Amino acid sequence: MAAVTSLLDSISDIGRDPVRGGYSRPVFSAAETELRSWFTAEAQSRGLAVETDRNGILWAWWGEPQKGALVTGSHLDSVPGGGAFDGPLGIAAALAAVDVLKERGVQRNRSLAITVFPEEEGSRFGVACLGSRLLTGAIDPDTARNLRDDAGTTFADAARAAGLDPEHLGRDEDALARIGDFVELHVEQGRGLGEDGPAVAVGSSILGHGRWKLTVHGQGNHAGTTLMEDRADPMVAAAQIITAVQQTAAAQPGARATVGRIQAIPGGTNVIPSRVDLWLDARHEEDAVTARLVETIHGKAQKIAAFEGCSVTLAQESFSPTTSFDPALQRQLQLALPQAPVLVTGAGHDAGILAGHVPAGMIFVRNPSGISHSPEEYVEDADADYSATALADVLEDLL
Amino acid sequence: MAAVTSLLDSISDIGRDPVRGGYSRPVFSAAETELRSWFTAEAQSRGLAVETDRNGILWAWWGEPQKGALVTGSHLDSVPGGGAFDGPLGIAAALAAVDVLKERGVQRNRSLAITVFPEEEGSRFGVACLGSRLLTGAIDPDTARNLRDDAGTTFADAARAAGLDPEHLGRDEDALARIGDFVELHVEQGRGLGEDGPAVAVGSSILGHGRWKLTVHGQGNHAGTTLMEDRADPMVAAAQIITAVQQTAAAQPGARATVGRIQAIPGGTNVIPSRVDLWLDARHEEDAVTARLVETIHGKAQKIAAFEGCSVTLAQESFSPTTSFDPALQRQLQLALPQAPVLVTGAGHDAGILAGHVPAGMIFVRNPSGISHSPEEYVEDADADYSATALADVLEDLL
Repeated sequence: MAAVTSLLDSISDIGRDPVRGGYSRPVFSAAETELRSWFTAEAQSRGLAVETDRNGILWAWWGEPQKGALVTGSHLDSVPGGGAFDGPLGIAAALAAVDVLKERGVQRNRSLAITVFPEEEGSRFGVACLGSRLLTGAIDPDTARNLRDDAGTTFADAARAAGLDPEHLGRDEDALARIGDFVELHVEQGRGLGEDGPAVAVGSSILGHGRWKLTVHGQGNHAGTTLMEDRADPMVAAAQIITAVQQTAAAQPGARATVGRIQAIPGGTNVIPSRVDLWLDARHEEDAVTARLVETIHGKAQKIAAFEGCSVTLAQESFSPTTSFDPALQRQLQLALPQAPVLVTGAGHDAGILAGHVPAGMIFVRNPSGISHSPEEYVEDADADYSATALADVLEDLL
Repeated sequence: MAAVTSLLDSISDIGRDPVRGGYSRPVFSAAETELRSWFTAEAQSRGLAVETDRNGILWAWWGEPQKGALVTGSHLDSVPGGGAFDGPLGIAAALAAVDVLKERGVQRNRSLAITVFPEEEGSRFGVACLGSRLLTGAIDPDTARNLRDDAGTTFADAARAAGLDPEHLGRDEDALARIGDFVELHVEQGRGLGEDGPAVAVGSSILGHGRWKLTVHGQGNHAGTTLMEDRADPMVAAAQIITAVQQTAAAQPGARATVGRIQAIPGGTNVIPSRVDLWLDARHEEDAVTARLVETIHGKAQKIAAFEGCSVTLAQESFSPTTSFDPALQRQLQLALPQAPVLVTGAGHDAGILAGHVPAGMIFVRNPSGISHSPEEYVEDADADYSATALADVLEDLL
């Protein structure tokens, strides 16, 4: 049937990034908007009724919208230069799973909805899982409205341009009540599934993770006329801070800490910067360890900055505690997929945000490269197509 | 008379940078174009005839254009978030000096021209002193045409948009022959002139300097799912390379090395970058020392990158050898300004590029902050206004 690969093929030209490689599909960009239209058309062609809720989440209904429905979904936005599967695999598998369930003639005891969440990656406005955070009230709507992208556009303005009313953003009791159970299928982002074993796994929990912004202030000056000993160069301090981030995380078993984004201000080749901003991503299964890790990094950063005649501030941009999925739902997924191993994931997902409010679970699909957030993210065609069957097996048991 | 401060006041609102502070006036931007129009109007109001040569250099003529004329000038473009004086001070002083010379009723033995050079900072297309390099043939016109700014616009396209014919870029024998002597007045960019001494200095030479781009390749991946020990993170390597740049330069007396610009690709907070680009600015009075410095940094960078499972390439973007100004012209400047000390400068200037082809010299104006390429660059009003008198004294002797 090859339905999932053919669905992914049909969007393989949307949002390609000629500079970074892979895909750049930030939320509400032309590319992500085109993908939302594609989803709407695919859902409608299956007889599903599509609506957009007040937080910009798409809902495609098989059956009447109702409380306690079975919901599956993922996202269509990407990191800059991301892969083809992170997000879209879950959406394509859900559409194809509906076909499988219809072919099987499954009798529904409740309605099924497929959801598309906006800004899962947080790559445009800095807060990951922004759609599910708004839905559940995990982020204050005022905070969300005032988030800005790199061009200075607020989330409120971007949402308005996408047809939403920014005043109506925020916790949505009605929408939340419609989720009886939530299942997200997602490409695996490590090497948790070996070559010869089963192609899918069931998720047990998501590592706690957060984002912090470090701002190093120094003295901007001319790169040619300022003697090395007269400098207070925030780039020199930032470099040692990045080294400290790596060393601190490497010394803590199970911890991951990353600086993936950095900005020198003003950013001229012949200018000692006056300021360097860097963003820290830190994760550990135990939230107390993550907190201690960031505290240690902050302390080291302050010493480094002071030694270089600079100063540093650290501000938390987001934090999600370690989240266990609903044990009863996890057991049902394992029963439907008896071969599937159980995995902890280091990546955040909308299912993790929802897990604090409704029964939520995840299915991971094998990624032989072990690489994600990169054009090298990979899923075998056979595994992609099998993912619809696996998801259908799970949904059939839950319907 | 306060002519220089009032000229600078009249452009103080053009190209302000609300984010970085100070001014961002990249070549051929709206701001720099407005400054060029301002210059043209000011020159014409003094009876000077203004023309643009085929490399985009403005010439304002007092007297007929002729071979062997006396020429003074500087630039109007800025680094991102630069100060008010770097460039514009030399232009305002030249305009005001013409007023002084006319008031004095000076009889000219030759014509005088004021020139405005484009892209002195290299902040848009990466090559400093691009206008004077094109004029003198120091850069191949094809290379110049293919330079790209951060938005991907080529210099050819930007030049065309500014009204130039990109096919006519390159060494201009006629224009060069018109420069009998060249004098550039410029804000000092260090603390070479003390509070209590004279307000101007005469330049003797410009430190050799160059720009190199280091590209660190690693393995892009997910920041949450990739264990610390499984990473080949180019940001971790880049950080250690920046530390090595600082340490290598600090260990070499008289050397300056700076990383003022860095770019992580793709640049997402939750993404281990696949590549980090950084730009090295290195300078020393002895060109051989600069070359050895960069070689040492390259060697260290390769070891660092290999240790992190990454690779690194280094490419020279530009190099200007240490340049001594014309000794005879320097003597004449010293005779006209008998109190002025003699300074070596660490900054590149169009006068340095021209010095290889025509007699060229420089006058520096006190900067009590010692800071340049920053909003904190500073010149006292009295010193700014005096700079026109000092420049007039020099030009009068040479006319």
